[in-house]
Order: sequence, then structure tokens, then C-alpha cells
Amino acid sequence: MTQKNRGILTVVSGFSGAGKGTIMKELMREHADCYALSVSATTRDPRPGETDGVEYFFRTREEFEQMIAEDALIEYAEYVGNYYGTPRTYVEEQLSAGKDVILEIEIQGALKIKKKFPETLLLFVTTPSAAELKQRLIGRGTESVEVVESRLARAVQEADGIEAYDYLVVNDVLSESVEEVHQMIRNEHRRVSRNINAIHNMRSELEDFMRHNEKGKEQ
Amino acid sequence: MTQKNRGILTVVSGFSGAGKGTIMKELMREHADCYALSVSATTRDPRPGETDGVEYFFRTREEFEQMIAEDALIEYAEYVGNYYGTPRTYVEEQLSAGKDVILEIEIQGALKIKKKFPETLLLFVTTPSAAELKQRLIGRGTESVEVVESRLARAVQEADGIEAYDYLVVNDVLSESVEEVHQMIRNEHRRVSRNINAIHNMRSELEDFMRHNEKGKEQ
Repeated sequence: MTQKNRGILTVVSGFSGAGKGTIMKELMREHADCYALSVSATTRDPRPGETDGVEYFFRTREEFEQMIAEDALIEYAEYVGNYYGTPRTYVEEQLSAGKDVILEIEIQGALKIKKKFPETLLLFVTTPSAAELKQRLIGRGTESVEVVESRLARAVQEADGIEAYDYLVVNDVLSESVEEVHQMIRNEHRRVSRNINAIHNMRSELEDFMRHNEKGKEQ
Repeated sequence: MTQKNRGILTVVSGFSGAGKGTIMKELMREHADCYALSVSATTRDPRPGETDGVEYFFRTREEFEQMIAEDALIEYAEYVGNYYGTPRTYVEEQLSAGKDVILEIEIQGALKIKKKFPETLLLFVTTPSAAELKQRLIGRGTESVEVVESRLARAVQEADGIEAYDYLVVNDVLSESVEEVHQMIRNEHRRVSRNINAIHNMRSELEDFMRHNEKGKEQ
């Protein structure tokens, strides 16, 4: 039961403003030895303060389409004229080394990954209530009706497909949510379906031992 | 997201000698407010020190067969001439009240329950390795080959069907195993499929809010 398992791929999605990014940052800070955070590639321009390879890998449209052609992305999508995608090599190297990899992507990309890799763990971060989400979407009440509308439309879109997720992270107290996510992933390592080899080995050893014991009886 | 969910039914099985009983006892001691332990009914005679309603409900064969006839058992089986079964009422009352119920039964009974109630959480307690299990089965080496053989046969039987289980509890350090089981059940409450109503409510509220916002724009 002690053999090193393959790492677990976890995708974290959630409502904008539910604190997903902060949970991820804290999780990486507290458990840097457990997790590798996958960095997405994009064709959008870096914003002030963003560094290539940290927030994103910033690529030209040509470079990105080359990656698509070479099947170098686990998933990709185009939003508002820009590509976003998950580079394959880093994820696969880390998983093979037994490291758990975390991706923070939206729900449609998450569902594509789950389809390709059914063992992916899908977590969805939400506020404790719709009322709280509304409050964050409205902000201080100084936004125009149109801005609130576009945020609401985005929230509805962000939750489309949530039924396919494994666990909800109801982000009320940050430190508790970080620990919950950590426990969800630790727990996943104990899933029977992820330990089938160890179980089969244990059973074979028991059966071998039974045969030896039988021999002892015959002598 | 704060609505009271139905309790979770957890079945704990495992190899004899892997420490299943001790884990359960500690779990109930540390988290008595969270869990209700279901007591099985049996037709076997009480052993010295056993109390009706504590270790088992001790019933006559006639009483037991009456329970079977009335569908008053979630599952039952006959071993070595005695019936063993899980009374239905207690389990259903506790689950409806939102209390998590734990059953400690062997794997064949567990699989029957999982078939009837697919939402049941199945946990299997094992030693860290086959070597350690063998050691416990052999004991001090003073047992006859036949006794060792029957223990081995039982262990092989106890693991038959383990692939249908959800999680392995590798019992190395008792206190850690108790905490693991507790976390597995807590975690289960956060599963998306157990929170579908809350998710649907949240989505409706968001959509209602969108409609109201639309009206605001029209005015």
C-alpha cells in the first residue's frame, strides 16, 4: 500500500469573486511540496506586472496554433479573440513524478479535461449563498445596470455544467477552504480505484502465502 | 448552501485484525455528535459481557424471520447457521434527521447495501502491507497450520469485492486513521451530487436576479 502513486490532476473552477485565486495562492504557499500549479498559455497581451511563465505563458497566435497542431495542449479555447490553453508536457511530467497538479480554469475547459482524463478531480468554488454572490457582483452599487448584467450573465455561464463536478468548496472562511481543498486531494489518493495495483499485489501475496501454508500441511 | 442535508450512510469493512473495531470505537468517542452507529441483529447467542442493543440485538430465529418477512432489515445473511442483519428503522430515522450513520459489516452485506442505496460510502480498512496482515494472521507462530489456513481463507474472502469500495483506510497509526475516516465522511458532504438542490436554488436565484436587473435597464 506504500507504493508511489501517479499524481492527481485537480481542476479548480468557480464563480468570479468567490475567492478561487486566493485559495489557490494559499494552498501553494502552505503545501508547496505537495502541489504543482499548471500555468496556462495565452495569446492575450500581458497586463502590467504579469511575467511570462508566472501568470501565463504569453505566446503569439502563430506559436499557439503551432501548439494546437502538435497536440501540445490538453485543452484550449478561444475567448474574445484570444486563445487560452493548458500545455501538456508540464502536466504529464509532474503527474508521472507522483506530484499532484492543479489547474485553475473555467468550467468548459474543465469538462473537456474530464472527458479526456476521467480520473481528474473537479472542484467548484462558490460563495456560501446566492445572496453573497449577488452582493459581490453588484459591488458598491455604483456600477451601471449593464456592468451588473454582464457580471450576472458571466456567473450564470460559470455555473453551467457544475453538475459534472466532484466537490463544492463553499468559501466562507479562507483558511478552512484551503484546508478543505487540501483534504479533498489527499483523500482522493485513498480512493480504491487509484490503488488497484496495490490491492491486487496484496491479494496475490495472501494467495501465495495460502499455497505455501497448504504445502506445510501436506508435509 | 447551508441547508441541512440528509445524513450519509457509511459502511466500514476490512480485514480481521486490521483494527476496524478500534477505529470505529475511537471515532464514536471523539465525534459522538456527528455519528450514529447502527447495531446489527443476530440469532447467535450473546457471549459473556455482551448486552442486547449494544454489541447486537439478540433475537430468536422466529423473531429474525419475522423481521425478514416484514422487510425490516436493509440486508441480512446467514453464517454458520446464524442470521445477521441490519435493522432498517434506526438507519432511516437517523439519516432523515441529518445524522451520519455508520455500519460495520462484512463485504457481501456492504455490496447488497450499496446496490439498494447507491449513495452509501464504502470504506475498507487494511493493514499497511500484506506482510503485516500475514504477521497478524500467523500470530506468535504457535497456531496450527489449520488455524492459520482458516484465517488466511477468511482474509482472502474478506477482500473479495473490494474493488467496489470507495476508499481504503490504511491503518498504520490509529489516531491518523480515525481522523482519515472522519475526513472522508465530512468530505462526502461536499460532494456536488449530494448538494444538487442547493446548487439549483442558487442558480434560480441568480436567474431571478438577472430578470430583475433586465427590468431595471428597461425603465
